[in-house]
Amino acid sequence: MQYEDKISIAKMPSDELKKRVVKVQQALADVQADACVVTTAVNQLYLAGFIFDGFMFVAPETEPILFVKRPIDTKGERVEIIRKPEQIGELLPKYGIEPPRHLLLENDVMSYNSSLRLQAALNMPKTGNASGILRKMRMVKSEYELSLVRESARLQNRVYAQVRSIFKPGMTDVGFQIEVEHLLRKTGSQGIFRCYGENMDIFMGSVLAGDNATVASPYDFALGGQGLSPVLPLGANGTPLTPGITLMVDMCGNFTPYQSDMTRSFAIGDVPEIAYRAHQLSIDIHGEIQNLAKAGTSCSELYGVAEKMTREAGLEAYFMGTVQQAKFIGHGVGLEINEPPVLTPKSKDLLSPGMVIAIEPKYVLQGIGAVGIENTYIVHESGLEKITLCEESLVKL
Amino acid sequence: MQYEDKISIAKMPSDELKKRVVKVQQALADVQADACVVTTAVNQLYLAGFIFDGFMFVAPETEPILFVKRPIDTKGERVEIIRKPEQIGELLPKYGIEPPRHLLLENDVMSYNSSLRLQAALNMPKTGNASGILRKMRMVKSEYELSLVRESARLQNRVYAQVRSIFKPGMTDVGFQIEVEHLLRKTGSQGIFRCYGENMDIFMGSVLAGDNATVASPYDFALGGQGLSPVLPLGANGTPLTPGITLMVDMCGNFTPYQSDMTRSFAIGDVPEIAYRAHQLSIDIHGEIQNLAKAGTSCSELYGVAEKMTREAGLEAYFMGTVQQAKFIGHGVGLEINEPPVLTPKSKDLLSPGMVIAIEPKYVLQGIGAVGIENTYIVHESGLEKITLCEESLVKL
Repeated sequence: MQYEDKISIAKMPSDELKKRVVKVQQALADVQADACVVTTAVNQLYLAGFIFDGFMFVAPETEPILFVKRPIDTKGERVEIIRKPEQIGELLPKYGIEPPRHLLLENDVMSYNSSLRLQAALNMPKTGNASGILRKMRMVKSEYELSLVRESARLQNRVYAQVRSIFKPGMTDVGFQIEVEHLLRKTGSQGIFRCYGENMDIFMGSVLAGDNATVASPYDFALGGQGLSPVLPLGANGTPLTPGITLMVDMCGNFTPYQSDMTRSFAIGDVPEIAYRAHQLSIDIHGEIQNLAKAGTSCSELYGVAEKMTREAGLEAYFMGTVQQAKFIGHGVGLEINEPPVLTPKSKDLLSPGMVIAIEPKYVLQGIGAVGIENTYIVHESGLEKITLCEESLVKL
Repeated sequence: MQYEDKISIAKMPSDELKKRVVKVQQALADVQADACVVTTAVNQLYLAGFIFDGFMFVAPETEPILFVKRPIDTKGERVEIIRKPEQIGELLPKYGIEPPRHLLLENDVMSYNSSLRLQAALNMPKTGNASGILRKMRMVKSEYELSLVRESARLQNRVYAQVRSIFKPGMTDVGFQIEVEHLLRKTGSQGIFRCYGENMDIFMGSVLAGDNATVASPYDFALGGQGLSPVLPLGANGTPLTPGITLMVDMCGNFTPYQSDMTRSFAIGDVPEIAYRAHQLSIDIHGEIQNLAKAGTSCSELYGVAEKMTREAGLEAYFMGTVQQAKFIGHGVGLEINEPPVLTPKSKDLLSPGMVIAIEPKYVLQGIGAVGIENTYIVHESGLEKITLCEESLVKL
């Protein structure tokens, strides 16, 4: 199958891919690197338009070359089928490329042994890190990418509008989550979604009911949950959905390669007034951030807004967890669910047009559960565009 | 939450964990290593009984110490809550442990940068690789582990017995797969399952219909498939399930942390005779392997049996793919779907009691689809015990 055919299946327009490659080339020139080798699925998808087992060689003044182990039928003008990384060095002269001396690798993700082998294969005395550069590059989306984020959000909105009808008395959180998953899949969810980080696992998202929301997590997500098994200590744990607790639904909108992220919370029967108060605070924080945020606003300032409003409401003990409190209230979204910028107190990032950020001020109330909402926003010059458009109040089931 | 509580949730008996740790300690002594640090989820689960963000320090003559970043409420006699790996070196003397000089790390999986940071934190001049040792150790299962594999297979059998009733004329492979996923989840599937390898992605398994089975894959699975999107180029691609093609179902049995693996194939309406012939050959290969295999049998010999029978039947052009042919006919199964031993022509592994192997001789017929079956077997002294027990013939839908 032609490399070009793969791109067309991918519907990743080739001019889009070319523009991204040019950005990488500029970044390489900026740090005076001779080349970078792209080995992770997410960045191959971003720069080549498809995933392969192999190496994408990007140098400043030449077209990229793909060294592909699998699929073995990958074809194209600058595609080489190889069996081992040692062949890269032998093949580069064919393209008039001198052996790189300063090479960037995806060393935040690539395994120690794979990186060492590639370095040895290319006779590298020393390499730099491409991971941060590529992650930063993906932070600002093109119109094409934004159209895919919007499409994901449109379908996620459709599913979330039906979520409350899934609830039936006597259900557990797991039974509920399975039906949400089924609806997501039938609406076009891709199933898995990509998540950054060495110690991160997730399956389609999470549903948290009652005190399961207080369980501290091994993962760097906003909230945790015990999960059903030690294999995936996250999300639903079999809690019966009984009156008096809240139910938080934070499932992924991965209907295209570009994701949207949304959380909605529900009250099962009558829940204490503090749940409504904390939930409304989350909505108010969203409102305040929408009033304030535009291109140039600092991410730390947005975190500060949420923290200040929470403190003024006296709800800081419940903010972003109880036992374990997350130190962010939002994050970028794109090919991965957790992209930069991260909205932390110490972030140095400023909002920039084309960023996509999910904001999720949440509160965990012992004996009740989690409340709050998460919306995904596109950053424009003049402000935020909300794309996750569903009822925001604490709906009673 | 107590470390011990986490284990009890996990239902991983602590004597089981202790025995495994002793094996690691023996392996360390064998290679004269001072310690190993366990950082991957799968091996933390195996040795500590739960997953955490942090480092499990195992040295030959002392109990393991857990250095935990998250969950921050992890408690226990030998548990330290830390924020960064640099603290490990500072805390070791508290346990009477001298700084290790020869340290094994999970360098086949751990990222280059994380490994370097840990090496610097512990002042290591040089480290060895723990990955292969731990993978090899997990190859032979205890009675406890086998009971979980059997439980997964029992539930997978139940789902597979219902699979044919899911089919409805007019369906696509994707529609069909979504309903199989739903049934798996309702029967207790954990959703995600663990898969070894830097360039591996999967979502619950794969369904392949018609010529989609010929599509070469970027992944090191037996067969490929185009998938629905470049985000996951694997499995179902929207092929209508029309008469004349075959449908192969290879979904994971991950109902416990220990998986079972099974494939069944179906004929939609009337399919050419060669499909039945190739399918029967797969069944015959299973039979021949069951006659032959016992403790001590070499994995390469089993591959040889499948290859020889295929050649004698004149079906080698279709064996394990067409465009891209996998060079194995089976693999170990456990906490990961793709464990050693791998049944390849060059394998040096011998079958050993307690191994769990999935055998999957498959054929891909252009214009028709994939056929063949996969079963999971437990290796005993005297032979193989088949645990995936469902109708094996090419059932007509």
